[in-house]
Amino acid sequence: MLHVNGGMGDTSYANNSKLQREIISMTCSIAKEALTNFYKQHIPTSITMADLGCSSGQNTLMIVSYLIKHVEEARQKLHQRPLEYQIFLNDLHGNDFNAVFTSLPSFLEDLEVQIGGDFGPCFFHGVPGSFYIRLFPTDSIHFFHSSSSLHWLSQVPMGIENNKGNIYIGSTSPKSVAEAYYKQFQKDFLMFLKCRAEELVMGGHMVLTLVGRTSEDPSKSGGYYIWELLGLALNTMVAEGIVEEKKADSFNIPYYIPSPKEVEAEVVKEGSFILNLLKASSINLNHIVRETDQQDHSSSPLINNSLANADDYDFAKCIQSVAEPLLIHHFGEEIMDELFIRHKIIVADCMAKHKIMECINLTISLTKKM
Amino acid sequence: MLHVNGGMGDTSYANNSKLQREIISMTCSIAKEALTNFYKQHIPTSITMADLGCSSGQNTLMIVSYLIKHVEEARQKLHQRPLEYQIFLNDLHGNDFNAVFTSLPSFLEDLEVQIGGDFGPCFFHGVPGSFYIRLFPTDSIHFFHSSSSLHWLSQVPMGIENNKGNIYIGSTSPKSVAEAYYKQFQKDFLMFLKCRAEELVMGGHMVLTLVGRTSEDPSKSGGYYIWELLGLALNTMVAEGIVEEKKADSFNIPYYIPSPKEVEAEVVKEGSFILNLLKASSINLNHIVRETDQQDHSSSPLINNSLANADDYDFAKCIQSVAEPLLIHHFGEEIMDELFIRHKIIVADCMAKHKIMECINLTISLTKKM
Repeated sequence: MLHVNGGMGDTSYANNSKLQREIISMTCSIAKEALTNFYKQHIPTSITMADLGCSSGQNTLMIVSYLIKHVEEARQKLHQRPLEYQIFLNDLHGNDFNAVFTSLPSFLEDLEVQIGGDFGPCFFHGVPGSFYIRLFPTDSIHFFHSSSSLHWLSQVPMGIENNKGNIYIGSTSPKSVAEAYYKQFQKDFLMFLKCRAEELVMGGHMVLTLVGRTSEDPSKSGGYYIWELLGLALNTMVAEGIVEEKKADSFNIPYYIPSPKEVEAEVVKEGSFILNLLKASSINLNHIVRETDQQDHSSSPLINNSLANADDYDFAKCIQSVAEPLLIHHFGEEIMDELFIRHKIIVADCMAKHKIMECINLTISLTKKM
Repeated sequence: MLHVNGGMGDTSYANNSKLQREIISMTCSIAKEALTNFYKQHIPTSITMADLGCSSGQNTLMIVSYLIKHVEEARQKLHQRPLEYQIFLNDLHGNDFNAVFTSLPSFLEDLEVQIGGDFGPCFFHGVPGSFYIRLFPTDSIHFFHSSSSLHWLSQVPMGIENNKGNIYIGSTSPKSVAEAYYKQFQKDFLMFLKCRAEELVMGGHMVLTLVGRTSEDPSKSGGYYIWELLGLALNTMVAEGIVEEKKADSFNIPYYIPSPKEVEAEVVKEGSFILNLLKASSINLNHIVRETDQQDHSSSPLINNSLANADDYDFAKCIQSVAEPLLIHHFGEEIMDELFIRHKIIVADCMAKHKIMECINLTISLTKKM
C-alpha cells in the first residue's frame, strides 16, 4: 500500500512534489561532489549508480541529470574519454515505472543537447522492490543516492495499539510508542546499510537525505506537523462520529523522523562505512527555504541559514499525494475528500500562526571502507 | 507505435500469446543447455542475463523460470554455492512494465518454493528501449535470450510505396519491395549483433528465436498467411470503399521473415560470434505442433516432426494482439472491429482448406569468440 498518488491529477505526487524537489536542489551539491571525487580518484570507464526511492514525475530524473552533468564537467576538464553510465531507478513495485520509462527518450535527448559533444552512452534500468532488502549483485554499484524516501519504514511498528488520538509519535503518545517507532527505524536503517554495503564496490559512495529532527525528544521534532496536523483532522471526524474511534486509533504511519545521533549510531553499528558528513538542513514551509552551511568531513550536525524562494507551495496537497494510498487502504476511499478538506484548513491555520514551519532534512555522505 | 495490445482484455497480448508460448517451450532446451554449459565451464558467483523483447503477460517470465531451474539443477549436482542472478527484462518504452513488475513478487515466491533450499538471490530490472541500439554497458552480460521479437524491424523499409495491395512481401509485390525489406533486415540484424557483441562478456552466449522461412523466395515463406490474410481483409474493405486505397497502399508492416541463410550471412558478416546451431522448427497452427529434431553444433537447418497439442488456439486474435496498435496508428481506431471480423473469417476459411498451416521459427545459438 506504500506508494505515492500516481498519474498527473490535482493530488498526484507528480504535481505536488515541490518540497521534495527543493530538498534535492538544496542537498545535491553533496552528492555531486561525492560522485565526482570518486570519478577523479578512479577514472573508471563506466559509472553504475542507483537512485533509491526514485518515485515518478519531475523529480525522478533530476538528480541523475545533476550528477551526470557534474561528472561530465570534470571529465572534460581532465580530457578523459567518454564514460558509460548505467543508471538504476528503484522504487516499490507499485510505482508508476511506465511513466518514468516513457519520459526517458526526451530526457536523454535534452541531456545530450545540454552536455554536447562526445557523451555517454547512458543505460537506464528500472528496479522494482523495497530497499530494505538486497536489490543488486554484490560489489556492483559505484554510487547510491536516495532523497525523501528513507523516513518511510518497512512496516508500521508492532505494539503501538495504545497510540490513541495520534497517527505518529505525538505529545500525548505513551513512551512505548516512541520506543517502538525508534526500534523499527533502527532495524530498517541497519538493514538498509547492510544491503548497500554488500552491493557497493569498495570505495563506493552513498549520499542519503531523509526528514529528520534536531531535538532528541521524538515528539518535539522539527516536523511534528507533518503527521500531527493530519491526525488532528482525523480526530475532528472521530469527534463528529464520521470515523469510528477504533478505526482511527488503529491507524499509524510507517514513518520515522530520526535525530542526527540516531542516524549516526546505526552507521557506526553497521561498521562498513566512513561517515564523511552528516548535515541538517531546514526548509521553512512558509515560502522560505533556510539552508545550513555545509560542513564537510564532520559528523556533527550544524544548522545555519541561507535563503531561497519556494513560492506557491501547497504543503497540504503534498501530504495528500504521499499518504492518500495508505489512508485509503485503511479507511476506504469515501472519507478522503472530507479528511483532506479539514487537513487543508488546519494546515492553513497553523501556517498563519507560525511564521516558521520548518521541515528538517538530514543528509549523510558515506564511503564504503576499503 | 510498435507495442503489443496491453492490459488483460479479450484482444490483449497477455491473453493471446499462446503461439509465442509454444515457441518458447519448443526451443527453450537450446537456451537451457547453452546457459548451463556456460555455468559448468566458468562456475561464476553470479549470472547476468537479459531477455530482449520480454513483452508483458504469462510469457514474460517463463524463459527466466526455465533457465534458472536448469542452472540450479546443475549447481546442486555439482555441490556449488548459491548463485546471484541478475535478470534484465527488455522491451520498448511502450511495454507495460508496471504489469511485469507487480507480478514479480509472486513469481519469485513460486520459484523459491519450486527450487527449494538455498537459492538466489534474484535481482530483476526493467530495461526500456529498442534492442537495435546499445542497452547495457560493455562486457556486462553473460547470456542473452530473445524469442518472437527479432522479426520486428526497427522501421518500415524505405522505398516500398509501390507495394500495392500488400502489407508485407506478397506474391504480387514488385521485386524491389522484397529487396528493400531484406536490406532493412540486414541493417537491423547486423546492428543487433554488433550491440550484443559489445555487451556480452567473452565466451558469453546468446540464443535467439524468430519467425523464419525455409524457401529462399521471400514471397513464398512458410508464414505467408501471417500478413497476407490480414492484407486480404484490408483489400475487401478497400474494394467496398470503407478504407481509402491510398491509405491502404501506404501501410506496410515493419516485419521480416528471413531464411536460415540470410540469418547466417549476418552472423558471419558481423564476425564476433561462433554459430553453434541454427535450427528451423515448424508449428502447425491447425492445433498441431510439429517440432524439429535438435541438431546441435550444426548450422544447417533440418526439419523433422514431433507432436504436441496446442488445443484451442486463436491465430486471428494473436495477430490482432500484436498488430493492432500499429494499425490504429495508421488507420485510426474506427475500422479495427470490422477489419478483425473480416480477418477472422478469412483465417477460419484458410484453416479449413489447409490442414497444415505452418509457422516456421529459426533458433540460433551463438557464443562470443574469446
